[in-house]
Amino acid sequence: MADPKFFSKSKKLTLDKISKLTKISLPESVNKKRVFVDISTLDTASQDNVSFLDNKNYINQFKKSKAGACFFKKDFENIAPKNMVPLITQNPYHSFAIIANAFYPMKDITAGTHPKAHIESSAKYDDTVQIAPGAVVSNDVVIGSNCLIGANTVILSGVVIGDNTIIDPNCTIAYSIIGSNVKIHNGVRIGQDGFGFAQNEDVNLKMPQLGRVLIKDSVEIGSNCSIDRGTGPDTIIGEGTKLDNLVQIGHNAVLGKNCIIVAQSGISGSTQIGNNVIIGGQVGIAGHLKIGNNVRIAAKSGVMKNIEDGMTVGGIPSVPIKDWHRQTIILKQLTKRRQK
Amino acid sequence: MADPKFFSKSKKLTLDKISKLTKISLPESVNKKRVFVDISTLDTASQDNVSFLDNKNYINQFKKSKAGACFFKKDFENIAPKNMVPLITQNPYHSFAIIANAFYPMKDITAGTHPKAHIESSAKYDDTVQIAPGAVVSNDVVIGSNCLIGANTVILSGVVIGDNTIIDPNCTIAYSIIGSNVKIHNGVRIGQDGFGFAQNEDVNLKMPQLGRVLIKDSVEIGSNCSIDRGTGPDTIIGEGTKLDNLVQIGHNAVLGKNCIIVAQSGISGSTQIGNNVIIGGQVGIAGHLKIGNNVRIAAKSGVMKNIEDGMTVGGIPSVPIKDWHRQTIILKQLTKRRQK
Amino acid sequence: MADPKFFSKSKKLTLDKISKLTKISLPESVNKKRVFVDISTLDTASQDNVSFLDNKNYINQFKKSKAGACFFKKDFENIAPKNMVPLITQNPYHSFAIIANAFYPMKDITAGTHPKAHIESSAKYDDTVQIAPGAVVSNDVVIGSNCLIGANTVILSGVVIGDNTIIDPNCTIAYSIIGSNVKIHNGVRIGQDGFGFAQNEDVNLKMPQLGRVLIKDSVEIGSNCSIDRGTGPDTIIGEGTKLDNLVQIGHNAVLGKNCIIVAQSGISGSTQIGNNVIIGGQVGIAGHLKIGNNVRIAAKSGVMKNIEDGMTVGGIPSVPIKDWHRQTIILKQLTKRRQK
Repeated sequence: MADPKFFSKSKKLTLDKISKLTKISLPESVNKKRVFVDISTLDTASQDNVSFLDNKNYINQFKKSKAGACFFKKDFENIAPKNMVPLITQNPYHSFAIIANAFYPMKDITAGTHPKAHIESSAKYDDTVQIAPGAVVSNDVVIGSNCLIGANTVILSGVVIGDNTIIDPNCTIAYSIIGSNVKIHNGVRIGQDGFGFAQNEDVNLKMPQLGRVLIKDSVEIGSNCSIDRGTGPDTIIGEGTKLDNLVQIGHNAVLGKNCIIVAQSGISGSTQIGNNVIIGGQVGIAGHLKIGNNVRIAAKSGVMKNIEDGMTVGGIPSVPIKDWHRQTIILKQLTKRRQK
Repeated sequence: MADPKFFSKSKKLTLDKISKLTKISLPESVNKKRVFVDISTLDTASQDNVSFLDNKNYINQFKKSKAGACFFKKDFENIAPKNMVPLITQNPYHSFAIIANAFYPMKDITAGTHPKAHIESSAKYDDTVQIAPGAVVSNDVVIGSNCLIGANTVILSGVVIGDNTIIDPNCTIAYSIIGSNVKIHNGVRIGQDGFGFAQNEDVNLKMPQLGRVLIKDSVEIGSNCSIDRGTGPDTIIGEGTKLDNLVQIGHNAVLGKNCIIVAQSGISGSTQIGNNVIIGGQVGIAGHLKIGNNVRIAAKSGVMKNIEDGMTVGGIPSVPIKDWHRQTIILKQLTKRRQK
Repeated sequence: MADPKFFSKSKKLTLDKISKLTKISLPESVNKKRVFVDISTLDTASQDNVSFLDNKNYINQFKKSKAGACFFKKDFENIAPKNMVPLITQNPYHSFAIIANAFYPMKDITAGTHPKAHIESSAKYDDTVQIAPGAVVSNDVVIGSNCLIGANTVILSGVVIGDNTIIDPNCTIAYSIIGSNVKIHNGVRIGQDGFGFAQNEDVNLKMPQLGRVLIKDSVEIGSNCSIDRGTGPDTIIGEGTKLDNLVQIGHNAVLGKNCIIVAQSGISGSTQIGNNVIIGGQVGIAGHLKIGNNVRIAAKSGVMKNIEDGMTVGGIPSVPIKDWHRQTIILKQLTKRRQK
């Protein structure tokens, strides 16, 4: 499926391996040594491909699919094609993602330091690390095992990086403690001093920014994001949280665990975000707010008040999502009346 | 006109050359060998400058202009100054742009590879290409003729680039097929893996992103844009489409031909955009939508539904532009009433 | 207070020094030679720390604070703790910022040019300048004293930079005249050609962009901002103006002095902004507008008309701020009515 110019040929996986990785039990009748060679969508899959059904809109494709094995929910057992090995799971897309990662393990690292990188002698790292051409690793930087420092990326003094962390090309990282299993995409800026000024008679005097950025384990940060370091407290991105591209995080902001922040959103200084929060694209959140756990914020919202746990909001200024839909309907009705 | 510190002195063009380049016929009486040395605005132009009239607000400047030659529409023939050579055209600004490019040909390339670039031996390119200091060209990259790879730009493995394509400094290009006559500005990120996760009990598992980015001929991409590669299908930017700065393009998005996307707009994953679409600044378009041909979207709109060919829309959520104007008027009226 | 991994130990300052730097007169009884070693917040300060009270919400902390000295307004003189040296000022936060800078002088420069930088022989600079590894300094660049050109930053031909200017890593600067005491953060793009096209039958012909960017003294530009050069006139950022991260400035835009532009805002081409203007986050301003002095624009606004001096506006399209609040209230009332 994937262009061999860019991707290694997919691995081969036995049904037994697939079953173990996804913790799905197989029907007794199947040959556990049967080999699968790729993943595929329902309509294009062949006998040696694994596919998935996650959305009822695809049931017709499912019924006709030639996929040799397929992840689906128990409800669809009776309509599955006869020759398809059923891989029954509560979360077909998640099981499929596990297998997809096994077919296409992303190997981003070729250990070794390139002679065209510049690495200060006080930097510490072992021989499992790749430092690509043009990368700059400054004084007292500490890098864990199996990390990649991408081409032309700059790691400034004192930064600490955990294990298995990938920092793609052309990034700048300063004043930061980066966890393990972190993925930082191209062109990300972390740790520059925040936007804090003391005003006096129209002159803006910079306040020294004496905090750091803490990026916890398993965080992913999209390309061209900017994350400022704290003023005194730290700016923190919680474990497992994922940022899309071009996101702005102001100084002292604290994000919880497993949040999803879609592209071009901005979180102002000193705002706290709970766990499992989902923020749509181009959302803006004002400073010094508290956003609870499990909150969802619709794309393009402007949040100007605290939000309690579990709420879903939308609009500028943001309101409970049902009220936002009502606003939309009311404006439509008033518009129609005016038209007449 | 242009600062000689940064721009080469303008070329000299005869009336004959100007006429041929713009396909405009000259009055028989003029001396076709007459030489012009620069372009200028109506108010500052001198006898050896070429100017243009494109907007009725400038008619007074036009009447008094000392420009030796001027592009304008036939309607203004009678009020043109006597000494001005009339260059009559249906699209004065476009004709002027043709001539401006002839006076100031942008030569961005000095062929040759710099010793401080790092180029893998398996990369292919000819001696018309410039690879600037600090650039990194990885394995199996193929670069066409007359291309520039700017300073500290990183081209990752397998990328293919057409002819006459300019990639400015500090860019990162991965998993992409780039066409000919493409212009990619400073700090652009193309081909990083898209924002796709399979959720399970609050853990977000990355889905491998196995597609590419296809940038077609004559595309221009503004500084610090981010374009993610596809999940399996490709992300595609159609021929002649122009992106302003800081634009976000999600995975699997497909943009048609000759679109204009103004700065800081974002197009979510799997959305399809037709041809000749104009998208204002800071627009957001949700995922999995279909936007027709010749659609126009007002700045700051939030598009949450498909849009048919030829529509103009505005607002959050976006509605036909007339309805959006009505909403604005209604809110103004209600506000005034409340004020009383 | 600050992590010694990243920040030098704070300086020691006598009360006499503190008094002179802030132009605050001390009570006669105090020992002017008393030494302070750090700044701190009211609740964590110790006897040898300086703190400040700027917000009435912190009065209880103030009353109990152990800070050895504290900036506050005359009104609070009577409730100050007995052992606290009073530093009475009209602008406590500003005075505190002065002292904070004295305790933590940010020394970003280690003079010298790194062998892994590439510097063209026609570039001019003295031995007070630092040019970091991977930086590229092109033909005819002129750099003043005490400047830093950060790692992997690219300065293209002809650029002029004043004194004491810091350009952080991974920036690209072209076609620009940069003043003194300017701070340019990581990943900033300045001087690429603006987004100007002449349309003809669906083809967009690039108009040569023959202007420059002028960055005046004491400007600060946040990470990953994009500032396009002018079309013929220049793009100008006025003295003392501060841009947060990911801000977009279109060609020919002219910003006045001491403005504050919060993150992810965009100013379209040819718009003029007065002095002391404050623009919230994610604001968009259309092209060819005139925004007066001392204007304030609420976050997320869309400005489509000129704004007179001293106005505060909000909304999309933006209206006087009181009207915007009224719109919000009206929508809330209509929503409630519908709910019933």
